[in-house]
Formats: sequence, C-alpha cells, structure tokens
Amino acid sequence: MNGIKITVIGGGSSYTPELLEGIIFNQELLRVAEVWLVDVEAGQQKLSIIEGLAKRMIQKAECSIRIVATLDKREAIKGADYIITQIRVGQLKMRRYDEYISIKHGVIGQETTGAGGFMKALRTIPVILDICNDIEQLAPNAWLLNFTNPAGVVTEAVLKHCNVKVIGLCNNPINYYKKFAATYNVSMNDVSINFVGINHLIWITDLFIKGESRINDVFTGWSDSYEAKNIPAFGWDLEFLKSLGAIPCGYHKYYYQSDRILQEQLEQLERNETRADQVQKMEQELFEIYQNPDLNEKPKALEQRGGAYYSEAAVNLIKSIQLNTKDMHTLNIRNNGTIACLPNDTCIEVNCVVERHQVTPLQVGEVSPQVRGLLQNVKAYEELTVEAAVKGDKGIAHQALTLHPLIPSAERAKAILEEMFIVNKRFLPQFDL
Amino acid sequence: MNGIKITVIGGGSSYTPELLEGIIFNQELLRVAEVWLVDVEAGQQKLSIIEGLAKRMIQKAECSIRIVATLDKREAIKGADYIITQIRVGQLKMRRYDEYISIKHGVIGQETTGAGGFMKALRTIPVILDICNDIEQLAPNAWLLNFTNPAGVVTEAVLKHCNVKVIGLCNNPINYYKKFAATYNVSMNDVSINFVGINHLIWITDLFIKGESRINDVFTGWSDSYEAKNIPAFGWDLEFLKSLGAIPCGYHKYYYQSDRILQEQLEQLERNETRADQVQKMEQELFEIYQNPDLNEKPKALEQRGGAYYSEAAVNLIKSIQLNTKDMHTLNIRNNGTIACLPNDTCIEVNCVVERHQVTPLQVGEVSPQVRGLLQNVKAYEELTVEAAVKGDKGIAHQALTLHPLIPSAERAKAILEEMFIVNKRFLPQFDL
Amino acid sequence: MNGIKITVIGGGSSYTPELLEGIIFNQELLRVAEVWLVDVEAGQQKLSIIEGLAKRMIQKAECSIRIVATLDKREAIKGADYIITQIRVGQLKMRRYDEYISIKHGVIGQETTGAGGFMKALRTIPVILDICNDIEQLAPNAWLLNFTNPAGVVTEAVLKHCNVKVIGLCNNPINYYKKFAATYNVSMNDVSINFVGINHLIWITDLFIKGESRINDVFTGWSDSYEAKNIPAFGWDLEFLKSLGAIPCGYHKYYYQSDRILQEQLEQLERNETRADQVQKMEQELFEIYQNPDLNEKPKALEQRGGAYYSEAAVNLIKSIQLNTKDMHTLNIRNNGTIACLPNDTCIEVNCVVERHQVTPLQVGEVSPQVRGLLQNVKAYEELTVEAAVKGDKGIAHQALTLHPLIPSAERAKAILEEMFIVNKRFLPQFDL
Amino acid sequence: MNGIKITVIGGGSSYTPELLEGIIFNQELLRVAEVWLVDVEAGQQKLSIIEGLAKRMIQKAECSIRIVATLDKREAIKGADYIITQIRVGQLKMRRYDEYISIKHGVIGQETTGAGGFMKALRTIPVILDICNDIEQLAPNAWLLNFTNPAGVVTEAVLKHCNVKVIGLCNNPINYYKKFAATYNVSMNDVSINFVGINHLIWITDLFIKGESRINDVFTGWSDSYEAKNIPAFGWDLEFLKSLGAIPCGYHKYYYQSDRILQEQLEQLERNETRADQVQKMEQELFEIYQNPDLNEKPKALEQRGGAYYSEAAVNLIKSIQLNTKDMHTLNIRNNGTIACLPNDTCIEVNCVVERHQVTPLQVGEVSPQVRGLLQNVKAYEELTVEAAVKGDKGIAHQALTLHPLIPSAERAKAILEEMFIVNKRFLPQFDL
Repeated sequence: MNGIKITVIGGGSSYTPELLEGIIFNQELLRVAEVWLVDVEAGQQKLSIIEGLAKRMIQKAECSIRIVATLDKREAIKGADYIITQIRVGQLKMRRYDEYISIKHGVIGQETTGAGGFMKALRTIPVILDICNDIEQLAPNAWLLNFTNPAGVVTEAVLKHCNVKVIGLCNNPINYYKKFAATYNVSMNDVSINFVGINHLIWITDLFIKGESRINDVFTGWSDSYEAKNIPAFGWDLEFLKSLGAIPCGYHKYYYQSDRILQEQLEQLERNETRADQVQKMEQELFEIYQNPDLNEKPKALEQRGGAYYSEAAVNLIKSIQLNTKDMHTLNIRNNGTIACLPNDTCIEVNCVVERHQVTPLQVGEVSPQVRGLLQNVKAYEELTVEAAVKGDKGIAHQALTLHPLIPSAERAKAILEEMFIVNKRFLPQFDL
Repeated sequence: MNGIKITVIGGGSSYTPELLEGIIFNQELLRVAEVWLVDVEAGQQKLSIIEGLAKRMIQKAECSIRIVATLDKREAIKGADYIITQIRVGQLKMRRYDEYISIKHGVIGQETTGAGGFMKALRTIPVILDICNDIEQLAPNAWLLNFTNPAGVVTEAVLKHCNVKVIGLCNNPINYYKKFAATYNVSMNDVSINFVGINHLIWITDLFIKGESRINDVFTGWSDSYEAKNIPAFGWDLEFLKSLGAIPCGYHKYYYQSDRILQEQLEQLERNETRADQVQKMEQELFEIYQNPDLNEKPKALEQRGGAYYSEAAVNLIKSIQLNTKDMHTLNIRNNGTIACLPNDTCIEVNCVVERHQVTPLQVGEVSPQVRGLLQNVKAYEELTVEAAVKGDKGIAHQALTLHPLIPSAERAKAILEEMFIVNKRFLPQFDL
Repeated sequence: MNGIKITVIGGGSSYTPELLEGIIFNQELLRVAEVWLVDVEAGQQKLSIIEGLAKRMIQKAECSIRIVATLDKREAIKGADYIITQIRVGQLKMRRYDEYISIKHGVIGQETTGAGGFMKALRTIPVILDICNDIEQLAPNAWLLNFTNPAGVVTEAVLKHCNVKVIGLCNNPINYYKKFAATYNVSMNDVSINFVGINHLIWITDLFIKGESRINDVFTGWSDSYEAKNIPAFGWDLEFLKSLGAIPCGYHKYYYQSDRILQEQLEQLERNETRADQVQKMEQELFEIYQNPDLNEKPKALEQRGGAYYSEAAVNLIKSIQLNTKDMHTLNIRNNGTIACLPNDTCIEVNCVVERHQVTPLQVGEVSPQVRGLLQNVKAYEELTVEAAVKGDKGIAHQALTLHPLIPSAERAKAILEEMFIVNKRFLPQFDL
Repeated sequence: MNGIKITVIGGGSSYTPELLEGIIFNQELLRVAEVWLVDVEAGQQKLSIIEGLAKRMIQKAECSIRIVATLDKREAIKGADYIITQIRVGQLKMRRYDEYISIKHGVIGQETTGAGGFMKALRTIPVILDICNDIEQLAPNAWLLNFTNPAGVVTEAVLKHCNVKVIGLCNNPINYYKKFAATYNVSMNDVSINFVGINHLIWITDLFIKGESRINDVFTGWSDSYEAKNIPAFGWDLEFLKSLGAIPCGYHKYYYQSDRILQEQLEQLERNETRADQVQKMEQELFEIYQNPDLNEKPKALEQRGGAYYSEAAVNLIKSIQLNTKDMHTLNIRNNGTIACLPNDTCIEVNCVVERHQVTPLQVGEVSPQVRGLLQNVKAYEELTVEAAVKGDKGIAHQALTLHPLIPSAERAKAILEEMFIVNKRFLPQFDL
C-alpha cells in the first residue's frame, strides 16, 4: 500500500465529516491511502450515511483516498498506521441516563465529569481495552489516538493495561491557542501556554504572547476562559482567578460554580432539556443534513455540535508524528514524574514534544496548593475509576464515586450507583450485577 | 528550681482539672515543681476558679507542686520545660458563630472541620505564633505541646514559621488504643495500630492484637469506629469500610456521611441546639461545680465534655520525653517524607518514637488512592489556611475555603467568608477587613 | 511443641556457640523448645563438633532446649519460628580467592566490600533464595534473620525476589551503642544514635547521651569510630569528620583511607597474611578448642574472631519480636522512602521499631551531599549485584563491578571478573561460564 | 538601538572568531546591532588582536555590526540582550598547574573532570557570580549563555545564587547530532537523541534515525562515540556498552578507561606534553595567525582547537530564543524533577524546548542503575564544589574532592588540595588560605 491507513472506530459519529475535511486538506503532506470507518451494529445506519458523505467529499476534493465502511473491527485495525477511537458505548440514550440520574440525586450530571462521566468510563473502558487487544495483535506499531470521553480516564486505562502506543486527545487546549491568538491578533505560533492538569481539568499557569507574559491581562479584564458550546457561561470572579494564580478551563465551572450549574441543570431537567436532550436533537438534525446526496462537504451546522477544532487537533497530531516535526502539542500521556504531585503511572494533560517514535512531556514540576488539592482529588477518583472498570469491582466503584468532589457523601454515591447499575447492566459485563 | 516547670496557656479552660489530675498521678516520676496557668483578661474569672480547684487538688494529694495563676504570659513562659497550649480565641461565643454561619449557608458547621474550623484557624494562628515568639526568646529549649484546635493546622503554622520544638497532640488516637484494648480484653501495649493521616482525618490501615492482624474483624462486625462525644453516631456501612481498606476516624463522618450530618445540624440550628450551644451550657455547669470549695478532685461531669483521655495523652507524652523512654505515641509532626503523597513541610498525624531530644515518625510510604484523594485535598486546604492566616490574605482565604471538600463552590465559600469576616473582625488584625 | 523452634543455617559456623550462649541466657523469656543446626556436607565435621559443644552447653545450663544437628535443610526449616542464616558458600577457601585476586589486581580485597564482597554475593544469593523457597513452603510465618554477608545485598535479594519476612542483621550498630555507653559511662538505653546508610556503610549523623547531642565531642577528640577486629585502625582526620558532619563506620576506611589500606594489603599479600589467611588460622584453632569434651561454655578465644555482640544483636531481636516489645533496633530492611535519596525497593540499615508482626523504619528524609554521593553510588552497585546474581548476567556483573568506587575502570573490573569467574565456576551455576 | 546587543565576556579568547563567523552568517535573521568584547587586563593584548580580526571580518561581510572591545565589564553588560561567558580565570598557566598537580599525585588531570576541573571551578565561580551581580543590575532581562567550564558546575552556581536567566551550553551534544547525521547520511533534523546526564557526563539512552531506534547499531558496530579533539581515543568495549544500555560520551572515558588514560597522562607529563601544554602552543600559533592584517575570516587552524561547532550551538540557541522557535536544544538547566534521581535544584544537561521567555526540559524520569550510580556520585561532588566555591569553605572543598570518583581517598584529596591551594592562592580570595 502506498500511503498510510487511518482507522476511525466509531466512524459513524457525527464528528467524522470534520475529521475527513482535515485529512483531505492535508492530503498532500499526509498521503493517506485508506480511511476505514468502523462501527457497531446498532450504529450501522449512521455509518452508512457517513460513508456516503465521506465518499462524496473525497470525490469533490479529487483525492485518491479509499473509504471503507465496515462492522469488522479487526479487519479495520489490521495494519493500520493510526487508529482513532471516538466511540460512545450505549449511544446517547445512556448518556441521557447518566445525566438524568445524577441530577435527580441532586448532583451535577455531565458527560465527562462527576457521576455521569464515571458511568460512561465504566461502560467504555472494557470496550477500549478490547480494541487495544486487537491492536496489539494486528497493528502493534500503530498509534492509537483516543478521543473517547472521559478521554483522560480511558487513556489511563490503556496506559496501565495495554502495550499500545496511545495518546489521549482533546480539543480543549487547541481552543485556547485559537482564542488567545484571536484576542491578541497574532498567529497561533506566537502564543505560548503553560498548562498543568488532567483532561477536562487543566489550568493555565502562564500565558505568553510573543514571549511576554500576559496572564495578568486575564486577571484584570477577563470575561471567560473559553466558552465551549457545552458548558454554561456564567463568567468568572476576577479576584478569584487572581488568587488562584491560574486560568481555569471551562470544565472547572462544574467545581468552582457548582451551585449555579446544578440549579440550571435542575431547571433543564424539569423542561426535559438537559445537554443529552439537546445533543440528541442536534444529532438527528445533522444526520438528516448528512443524508442529502448533494452535500459533499462538512456542513456549517456541525460547528454548533461542540467539538470545535477537534479535527484540527487530530490531523495536526498525525502530521507531527508522520513528518517527525518535533513540535509541541498538548496531550494526554503518562505522567512519569512530569507533574510532581501526581503518581507516575497516571495520565496527565500537558505540553509535549511529538516525534515520529515518541511523545515526551515538558517538565512541569511543583504546582501551587490551590491547583494541587483539586487536581490530586480528581486524579485519585480517576485511578479508582480505572480500577473499578477493569476489575468490575463494585466496592471500588463506590469508593471512586465517593471521592469525587461533586458527590457530597458515601451514601449519595451509593444511591446513584445502584440506580445507574440497573439501567447500565447490559453494558457492564465485567460487574456481577 | 528542683523539678520541671509546666506552663498551661489557656489555663482557665474547663479541661485543666483533668490535666492536673494526670500530673498529680505521675508526680513521682515527673517531679513537677511548678504549674503555671495563664489566661487572657476575658478569662480571668474562670482562671481564678480553676486556680482554686487546682490548689485544693494539690493539697488533697499532699503534693508539693506550686500552682501559679497569671495573666502575664511572658512570665509564665520564661524558663518553662513544657508549654501546653489549649486556648480558644474568641471563646465559645465565636465558636457559636462558626457553626451558625456555616449551617445557615447549607454546609456543615464544626469546630475543626470545614468552614468553622477554618475560621477558628484564622483567629488562632496569629495568637499561637505570638506565643511562639515568646518561647523562642524566653524558653528556647521548651517543648510546646499544642492541643489548640484545629490542632494539625495550628501545629503546621508553628512548624513553618517558628523555631520551636512543637508537637501537636489530640486525644483521638489514644481513644482507639483504649477502645481496642477493651474490645479484645488485652492491655493497651498488646494493641498495635497503623495510622495514616492528618489531625482529625486519620485512617487505621491495620490493627494488630498481640501481633495478629484483626482489621477484618472490624470490616465484618463493626458498629462504630470511635464514638466521640461530639460526633453524631450513625454507624458505618461495612461494605464501604471493606472497599476503603481502612477504618476511618469519627471525623470522617463529616465527609462520608455529610448528607445526614448536615440534615441533623439544620434541625439543631432550628432548635438552637448546635454543638456550640451544648458546650456552652456544659461549660457553665462545669464552672459552677468547680467553684464548690469542697471539691478537691476532678469531677465526674467533666467526662461528658468530649476530650476523653486528653490528660493521659499529654502526661504520657511528657513522661516519655522527660524520661527518654523511646516509646511510641501518635503525634502531629512534620511530614518530612513519611507519608509519600504529602509535601515534606506539612504536618501529619502518625506513630512516632519519642526521645528526650527528638520525635521521629515511623515510615508510612505510599497510601491507597481511596485514602489519598481526600487526604491530599484536605492537606492542600490546610496549607492555604496557614498561608492565609499568616499573611492575612483574603484571596488565599477564599482559595482555601473553596478547596475544602465540604464547601460546594467558590461562590458559597465567598458568601460564608464575607459573613464570617464581619463577626470575626476584631480577632483578625492580620487581615485588611 | 511447647516453645519456639529456632533454625540456624550454617549451624557449623564457629559463631554458633556465641549464639547459643545468648539463647541459653534468655531462655526464661524466650522459651526455646528446639534449636536446629543445619549445614552442608562439606561442613559436616564442623557441624558435629558444634553439636557436641552445644549439647554440653545446654547440659551445663540445666536447660531443656533440644539440639538437632542435620544436613536436611528442609526438615530443619519446617515449622520454624526463627531462621538464622550464617552461611559461607565455598567456605574460607573461596574467601581467600576473593581477597587474593582483588589485591593482585591492585584493588582492595575484602569480604563484604569491593570485588571480594561482590563475588561472595554472586555465590551466596542463589543459595539464600533457595532457602527462602523452602521457607515459603515449609515455614511461611517464620522470621528470617539474615547474618550472611554481604548482609545488605543478600537481604535486598530476598526482599526483591521472595515472599519471606526477612530482616538483615549486623553487629556493627550494636557495637556503637556499647562503645558510646562505655565512653560516657551510661547505660545503653541512655545512648541515642541517628544512623543513615546501608550495611557496612552507615554514617552516624547525630549522637545523644541522655538527650544531649554529643557528636561534637567526636569531632574534637575522636580517636576512632569503632575498632572492629577485622578493619585496620589508622584513626581519622578530625577536620575531615567535622566537614563530613557525620561519624563514618569502620568500613568507610576502605573508601576514605583506601590508599593506606591497599598498601597494607599488598604487604600482607606478600607475607601470605591477608584477613582470609588470619581467619583460616583462627578457625582451625577455635575448632580444636571446641572439640575439647570438657568445654561446656563459649570459649574466650571466640571473642577475637570479629563478630563482637553478634549474639546479643540476634537474641535481642528475637526477644523483641517474640515479646512484641515495640523497641528500637538498627536493622536492614526495605527502604520504602525512609532515606529519600535511595530507591524504594532497596535495602537500607536504619533504626526501626520492632513489633511482633512488623518492623518499621524511623523516617530519615534527606541526607547531606557528603553522605549522599558515596551512598547512592554503592547502592546502585548493590542493585546491579543483586540483578547479576539472580539473572546470572555477566554483562550486568561487569556493570556492577565497574560502578564500585574501589574499582578504577571498566577494564580493571573485567580483568578481575574473568579471573574470579574461573575459580568460582562451580559456585555460580546461574552463569553461563 | 536598532537590533540586539551581544556581549562576550572573555572576548579575547581564541574561540571568538568562530562565534563571530556564526553571528555574521545569521545576521539577516538575528539583526545584531553591537557585539561587545570584554576581557581582563591580563588579556588586553589578545583582546586587541581579536578586535582587529573581528572588525576585518565584519568589513569583509559588508555587515553593519558595531564591534566594541573594552575592559569595562559593566559598560559592556549594560542593556545587553545576550551575554556569553567564555572566561578562563588564571589563563592557561593555571590550567597547566591543574593538570600537572593532579597527574603528579597519580590521578587524572583534566580541565573539567576530576581535581583539575574542581580547581578551575573554585577559581571561576566567584568571578561568574560577580558578573551575574552586574547583570542583575544592568541587564536584568538579558539571557546569560555560559560556556565557561566546568559549564555544568558554573551554571549550577548561577542557578542557586543569582536571579539571572542562565543557560549552560556545551558543544558536546551538537557534535552527536552532526556525527549521527553524517553516519546515516540524513539531515540533523532526522536525528533524535535521548540524552540523560550532566555536563561532560551525558549518556545517550536511545538514538533514532527518522523515527527508527538505531542504538543497537552502536552496540554491534561502534568504534567510538565521539572523538573530541581533547580526549584520547581508545575505542569502546562493545559488550560493555550493550550491558550499559547506553552510549557514553567522550568524557566518560576518564571514568570507564581511567587506567589507560592515567597511564598516557603520566607519559605526557614526562614529555611536558599534557593537554595544557598542547593548548598553550596552539593558542600562541592561533594568535600569530589572527594578527595577520590580511586575515579577514575564521582561519582553518581554529578547527584543531577542540570546541567544534561551538559557534553553531551558541548562535542556534540565540536564534531560537530571539525568534521564539519552540524547537529543541540540549542544554544545561535546572533539574526541577526532570531526572528523578537528582536533586531539584541542581543543573542537568538534557533536551529542552526553547521559547522566547523560557527554556523547559523534556521529562526524563527514572534512569537505570548503571547510569544512576556514577551520575549521582558526580552530581553530589558538583553540589559540594559549588558550596565550597561560594562559601570559601576548605572543609567542604575536601569533602567534594574526596567524593569525586577519580580521587581514591580522602588523604589523596587532601594532598592535592593543599598543593593546589598554594599555587591558586591569589585566585581564591573567598578562601582563608
């Protein structure tokens, strides 16, 4: 085969057209021979819609990439150079349960944070480890780029339990580069950001524009750190940011502004308008658009979906690896002492240098107690979540959820867990339910 | 002077008769020449009552200890061998505010944990550091035994900011030895307990009776870890303890059972019966009893007060130091790498060997994620609390309280803080309020 | 069986009478039922002599301990409570080679340090691991007290590769307590010594007599740290000790005074009077004495042999375990973060608290660069020595010896190694020689 | 001023023409306005020769850079953007003593390693700290690029005792990139090298050509790692490299091949042909060439001098900083946890990402015991060397030298030290000699 093979697991996702757009745009450098789109039986219809759109996009671009849509995961993995995982075990239906059950018990319901993210991790990790098992056999040299949420927890499970070259990827960091480049009217390359944290819980400890520190600009005139489509925008208390000594990310609002967010979610719940409800509706609309046989490019509507610059992050990373550029990306990798206060074998999200053969984090060292306390607590929750998911251990699951800062007590954790276990039973074969 | 000088700062406390009983009981070994009782002007009446009782107790014991009651702190400190701090800045009146304001804002109100303990720390630390300043000048070789709550935070402030030989002491650990010795009908020396944690947040990671591990007995038949007088007794979920892999202490209930405790506190608040209210009443009764000129021993009623075996812990520690016994006590000292996941310069509560010249912790090493997550979070809160108290920094105070696991959001922290700052203003000269 | 079973592997050693004396002396507390003396076929004659003397000693003491001498290691291990290993693989003949080959190549030849100790470790570790394999099966609850040199390296091999409750023991620390007690004319209990290091490379970082630091006495008037019978006594440069900030042990002379010691050894080599030669002669004399059927106690001559207070160290340790005394001993155990600058899984020699069920080191923390540089270098050598011995890896053996501070170059290491491998071939089945 | 100001302290060095060549070659990108060459009075003649050549080089290149030669260090530092230190306190005359005294006492004499490097550090550090004092006042935003040997030790002194943005730089790493690019006939960008270590003691733990690991090529067919002009070339034992699991650098020969190197040095000493002698001769010849008024470019003869690609390393680094390129260089910076087994506050030499405002090391983590033992020992020596140089403490100086792996005993260290102190007296004002 002349050129590389990229395999997208969860290829029937509404995000796929964005990814394809990025691949097509960079085809001259990347020389992609094949893109395999894999999905499960329940997603066959969506996969088929995406396949059609993908082929029309390729055709329009007058590009020689071969598109293969299949349910045969092993065939798709075999000999791949890059494998992208963007799966949703149990589809949006289970996400809806994740959110509803959480909010009903008076805690924040969210796809990646808190009880909702926890249950998603329990469903997802066994499936990802199974994929990794195939990769070890059929594509041992492949790079696995994991986008599946909760991306940090899922990547940690792979790092701890598989022998696969994995990188966890999120669109959160690239959005900061975009945002600050726009704010200061400079190129992205003129922006330097010192990140510390884990996926969906990263702090910016310094910000440089053309080599000058500008974090104080944020402390004195900030409106909001980054307005993701999926996070409520209440703004930040500037005094709070200043004594924090860092810029929190959007997901920090679930911790620092939990009262207001919970209040809003309770109201949404009453109106049947939680984020899962919104996304479900959006998805239906998107797939209707995708089906249009005249559509041969990524539709504008996709930009409302939430994963802004997702494609750019993924394709840039593939380019850096493939071309051995040795440049910087903000990625989820093994800590290995980079953040001194977290265990070596856990997954962190920091600046890394990407080479063809390795991804190496830039040293962070010590972090302030302001950042450390929350970071360590959530990391311990994540470690237990991985352990519970892999072992199918209900006791450890209870410990994990109890530790989470958004869960007020062991008793509340237990009540939520019991209800979640009932509706998720068929997605949790590892547990004795 | 023939014999040692012991100075009790906060000598007018209702606990003092218990301490005196212990000193009298061990006088043959300790050979105490003088006990100085110091207090502030606002406590002069109580001090005078305690002085009277103390002298009657000495007389009854036919013992040669000289009792001196004074408001002159420096005179009392001068040349002392042991200085015991058991002060309550702002008296019970401020404790009542600590609890009421917390509960009113929907969070647990407690003397040492959460927002209440936080405000007590801000009031207390400057006073203790001032005492230490005197000790550095007037009694540089003295041992400072700090009982003042929150004992871990206060001791950490001294460790970080003074050059004083300080040990933080709590009656919590000794109660476990008492309890297990009683349960298994053995002597306290036959009980070995592996503790890990910080003051009022220690876990028992193993328990040995005559060299045999018995922690599984607890996991299979436990009713309650330790029923302190001041902590609600709801019992523990045995499954939870087993997956925790450790026995929590009584104060853990504020975290693991926070829903139920908060509910109870809200009800108490309505009835004007919070812990502060109860203690205030108890104190009045005690001092009425103490005034009785016929009373010449520690009254039974004191045992209801809460600090069981407080005297035994203190006097045993003084004995070990004085006699260079090299035996084990569970104490609050500098971490120095003992608990691997906590910063070196912070205060921990672990088993230590006590010698005449030094107190050395027994190595703990790594702890499980179950324990680690909560422990690290609360420790980061404590570090920030010390920093805020010493610097008088409102921003850091806000960060500290926001980090505390019992405070749900930065906004709630701010609201509580603002109200507390108003009523505490005259006790917080270090802050620009 | 009423009472405990102690098994001595290498029971035919000339040291055994000293150990027996200790057991007999403490019989009232220890209540020993049986002492099993095991040896290999080559040592049968010596074993039989020791057996005779042992029985006469028991008889004289009118004591009910049963003495069993056997070549059946497994029978001896079965159900033992304490197993003491004091073996010498290849006997004194191989020790002689260790020393001769080293000195011939211009490096110090010594039983436990440098090339000699290295070769002894390679011979000994497989035999000890084999014993541990038997212990795991036949006496899983036994405590293994390892005296076999190089005691630190051998103990580390057990800690890393077996599941046995092992403690490494050396008479070096107890000799310091004895010496300082005598110097200051106080009881051993009035002496406190802060040790840091590894077996045969421990520094005293502070010394207290009745709670007063007296290390400066040493810096200003010291003649020698401790004159073991087996180490040349050249005295110390007091200026050097002061800037070292610590008291080195006798074995440090091989590093700090290597020029003079090497010179002396070269002269001894010419006269056929190396330490191995001396010991061989001493041993012959001792066994002649032991054979005397009228001898029924430990002979005075044994005190010249080198292992002063060896018995006291061993018997005191057994007493502390058996009686759960919770007192302090200086022992070789797993580091586990105690000495911050050494890996967690390596063996260190520090003060420990001994309980019936566990031995816990007292926290040391950071050490000065003066101590750290040599300590870390020798520890890395030890780690590689264990690895080479276990894997039978000649390359790693070469790396280990090259790293040793007493070996000047990789080339010298290779030359020594090749010659040693030839004469040791039959004792190194794990290597492909 | 339009353009940057570069100040070269030790501007009269024979290396300066190479540096100027690099600046001229990159002038379009760097836009240098002024190059200030500073030297001490003893070097005035050389400085004047270099000044003449520099001006002729500028003229020939038709370039607008202003050359200023001065003895006024403060004027030269004032407002500089980049300050390069390449000084030699005591000139080559003292280097000759460093080498002669070492070899005479039977230890390797070398400019940066062992006793010679140690004495050079004691002479150099106070002078560099004095320069830094000026930088703090007169050019607080300048980057200090330190080439002065021993570069790692000198840089560590600055990191610990000054508030200056310092980077230590050596031509050793860039030579590996050059060498491997040539060997594999690829561009330098296709070469990736994983370095671990400290200046003049770095190991290559992996080597990648276009993303493929090729370190095994070295283990199977290697002749020599890198033949610097100043290090004897005896080749390496391939078996040794393989079990080392890493490629040592040229300076490792002083440790691994010390017997042969010492032998060679003893022979050179007899012939009056040590490295210092050779360099002294070379320098004289170079300055004769430099004086030629027709010479207007860097002469070929300079390439024999030893610092190959020195200019390229320096100018590339300035370009990366100035242009904020975010690319990788191998530099001497603060450890900060990058190499887990070394103290945080010490100086290491590793791959770094260079930005306009900061230089960040790539995480290394744990290293093998083979590497660790020697690395930690030499680092502890370096820490003590910095301490001795800054405090002027003879005792610490003795400890430092005793710790060095090339010094066999404390006694040898003392003898060397005493002789060196006599001849260096006027360069060591910080010591009480």
